[in-house]
Amino acid sequence: MSPNTFFSGLSRRTLLSALAMLPAFPGALLPISASAQTVTTGSPLPSWNEGAAKQAILNFVAAVTREGSPDFVPPAERIATFDNDGTLWVELPGSTQLTFALDRVKALAPLHPEWKDTQPFKAALEDDMGMLVKTGEHGLVELVLASHAGMTTEEFEKIVIDWLATARHPRFKRPYTELVYQPMIELLAYLRSNGFKTFIVSGGGIEFMRPWTERVYGVPPEQVVGSSIKTSFRMRDGRPELFRLAEMNFIDDKAGKPIGINEYIGRRPIAAFGNSDGDLEMLQWATMAGGSRFGLIVHHTDAEREYAYDRKSPFGHLDKALDAAVVNKWTVVDMKNDWKRIFAFE
Amino acid sequence: MSPNTFFSGLSRRTLLSALAMLPAFPGALLPISASAQTVTTGSPLPSWNEGAAKQAILNFVAAVTREGSPDFVPPAERIATFDNDGTLWVELPGSTQLTFALDRVKALAPLHPEWKDTQPFKAALEDDMGMLVKTGEHGLVELVLASHAGMTTEEFEKIVIDWLATARHPRFKRPYTELVYQPMIELLAYLRSNGFKTFIVSGGGIEFMRPWTERVYGVPPEQVVGSSIKTSFRMRDGRPELFRLAEMNFIDDKAGKPIGINEYIGRRPIAAFGNSDGDLEMLQWATMAGGSRFGLIVHHTDAEREYAYDRKSPFGHLDKALDAAVVNKWTVVDMKNDWKRIFAFE
Repeated sequence: MSPNTFFSGLSRRTLLSALAMLPAFPGALLPISASAQTVTTGSPLPSWNEGAAKQAILNFVAAVTREGSPDFVPPAERIATFDNDGTLWVELPGSTQLTFALDRVKALAPLHPEWKDTQPFKAALEDDMGMLVKTGEHGLVELVLASHAGMTTEEFEKIVIDWLATARHPRFKRPYTELVYQPMIELLAYLRSNGFKTFIVSGGGIEFMRPWTERVYGVPPEQVVGSSIKTSFRMRDGRPELFRLAEMNFIDDKAGKPIGINEYIGRRPIAAFGNSDGDLEMLQWATMAGGSRFGLIVHHTDAEREYAYDRKSPFGHLDKALDAAVVNKWTVVDMKNDWKRIFAFE
Repeated sequence: MSPNTFFSGLSRRTLLSALAMLPAFPGALLPISASAQTVTTGSPLPSWNEGAAKQAILNFVAAVTREGSPDFVPPAERIATFDNDGTLWVELPGSTQLTFALDRVKALAPLHPEWKDTQPFKAALEDDMGMLVKTGEHGLVELVLASHAGMTTEEFEKIVIDWLATARHPRFKRPYTELVYQPMIELLAYLRSNGFKTFIVSGGGIEFMRPWTERVYGVPPEQVVGSSIKTSFRMRDGRPELFRLAEMNFIDDKAGKPIGINEYIGRRPIAAFGNSDGDLEMLQWATMAGGSRFGLIVHHTDAEREYAYDRKSPFGHLDKALDAAVVNKWTVVDMKNDWKRIFAFE
């Protein structure tokens, strides 16, 4: 049974609950391709083909940065929010975070001989995705908690850094941090060079993203919003530490995205970028207000260079949001035709 | 009965719970004295007298900004966190936020004739602080919720802006946003001019601070961490809105401060500034780690120019933290002797 089938059996919310429990590893410095860091010089957005999508971006930025124009927005208010999975990097065939969780269970198995006979661990260890689906939400949460809660962020940091350094995407055979969309990297840099402050607003675990978003996207930890578990502060042997608890704190998906934006950023974005119905409310919140606003949806249409999916997808359908894009005049990026290249390594 | 007596009857946590329910009014631009905006030019920290406290600040900044020195910290990691009430602005004799809540109940009273005979509203309307104390935590929370929940942030924005524009401190007869400590304004600016990113980490309501912290402190909304209530996203008449719910989300006090720092900022500060035991854990988290670190406590010692209080105070004692300052070599500011002037308007 493919990972896709496994994920299809679980709700997006369940998955996000589980993913949010994944640990932090602040300060991790992972090697990534230098090209992913390239800042736009000369003509902006070189990996974008000429067309309506690219032109819409250029027009919007020109409008809000033109002083004296009725569309002008002061730099402090130029807030742009980006979904991560499927918008900035590859989300298929399996979530990087869930892959990490399953790998972690396998690594811990020698310390837990009882897992061989206990679900959901037995299924995870045997790669029995059918059985894993049958253990349901409870099983998945148990899996993630058993492998990730009950330790400090510091203790876990090294484990996660090591994992990301060696894990490879099953199709592209590259580190996950190289599977970021070059046109979106350019877009982030282009917006920043025009006075925008760029934020990530993802359903994924906030602490799973922060260690690498600055290096890969140019987005520092303090500009990352995501799902999270609760932590506890304590002194141990006279040193303060933060201990990760097996309890949800916040799910940053769907209606949670504008809520998270308000809570973490405290400003209403004037531009938002997503790829699924999980981003619908964020796009509504950012664009359905006065002044010049911009919404964009990445439509995965390129099965050859990446993947093709929309109305039904394991990581959140692009269904309602695709229809809403027409009504709200959001820009829909056709990956196959709008992007000259998808990855920096191409 | 004085407001102090009233506040003494309530736990700090209760108060913070209630304060967190106070509303947002993003985008508010309130008139403040131009001098509060003054950026340090020439000699840094002109409102600080020469002495150990000022020298400790200068030494720390010199150490972490000296390239090649073992204490050097890259700019991205120069995170400094500041408590607000009593650290950056006056917190006596009554919390600005609670004063706002009580005023709001009075303004709404004509729409609620039943409040004349119902506690805690009757007590609030009659300024009967003794009775208000008797209604306890439940009473205070009911008071705040009745006056502030059940509406959108947008709907509430104008009310709060209007209140802040007209409210005056009972002793200083000035807008609350002018009652900020000039030496701390200079310190914030001095740190920023040395590559620091300055954050507020306050037990007060996050949305009560954000509208004015940028103008008054130079700290933008996205760099403010505080207590909060939950909000709900909804579409009404085809427009998205965030609706404030009568439910706590996060209390950013004591152990909540390092937790909030980790959640909102995602980096560990190298410097922290507070004035009470509510800041103890933040100071521990920021300073009890490797590398050059800095902790500072504002000690209110000037009853003539401001107030004098420490071990017992209505808004959080300075007791354990004052003892911890000695052990941990945190700098303790003696307001009377270390500050040449306290307010910009002096």
